[in-house]
Amino acid sequence: MDTIIPGSHRDILDAKGFAFIATIGPRAAPHVSPTWYLWDADTEQLLISLTTEWQKYRNLQRKPHVAVCIPDPANPYRYLELRGKVDAFDLDENRNLINTLTKKYVGLDEHTRDQPSDVRVVVRISAEYARCFG
Amino acid sequence: MDTIIPGSHRDILDAKGFAFIATIGPRAAPHVSPTWYLWDADTEQLLISLTTEWQKYRNLQRKPHVAVCIPDPANPYRYLELRGKVDAFDLDENRNLINTLTKKYVGLDEHTRDQPSDVRVVVRISAEYARCFG
Repeated sequence: MDTIIPGSHRDILDAKGFAFIATIGPRAAPHVSPTWYLWDADTEQLLISLTTEWQKYRNLQRKPHVAVCIPDPANPYRYLELRGKVDAFDLDENRNLINTLTKKYVGLDEHTRDQPSDVRVVVRISAEYARCFG
Repeated sequence: MDTIIPGSHRDILDAKGFAFIATIGPRAAPHVSPTWYLWDADTEQLLISLTTEWQKYRNLQRKPHVAVCIPDPANPYRYLELRGKVDAFDLDENRNLINTLTKKYVGLDEHTRDQPSDVRVVVRISAEYARCFG
């Protein structure tokens, strides 16, 4: 798959920083909050894990346009911004993504902070535009 | 002036982290990028410095709705999200704001990275909603 992400900043995709996810809220105003992320190099998609209760999930269901700013955790003056759309909301049936993220970020095998009723979804984001800085 | 910002997270307003500013772009899709910020305690406004050439400035001129996520630089699992609107775009005539930000962030008296043609604007943001985490 071709990529629009510049080689100079692709290392950030595999770093352990936070992705600041901007979505459009119910009154057409922007929202922004940080989240863990995983880069799927095979599909060139950015994966994030949401529960279906979260505002971010509801915003993206309504309007799949999304912008993501990922600072280099080693240098806050260096970052990558991706703009694109959600390609798919996949049920994280075996909790593979949330557990993989927990391993990546905190070194534990399993994410244990959800409520039993929480439904985890894999949100797959494709970039249509990339901008880098620093 | 009353505030809607919880006391538990007001320290972040004076910290030296980055503010991730989410705006609405020309095709009604979100944009997000980091910037320096200054909290004006007298007016309860968040101040950012933009040049009139930047996309963020054009976005906010078109649509003044803005969301700002400010992580605690000492703990990325703690943050403050503000949502609101731009109250005013003031010309930074004597470059007071950009020089104050330069002092705050890099300890220098003067910001020297602009082009002579760059016009600096003080963007004053008021929060209508605040959310904190961590």
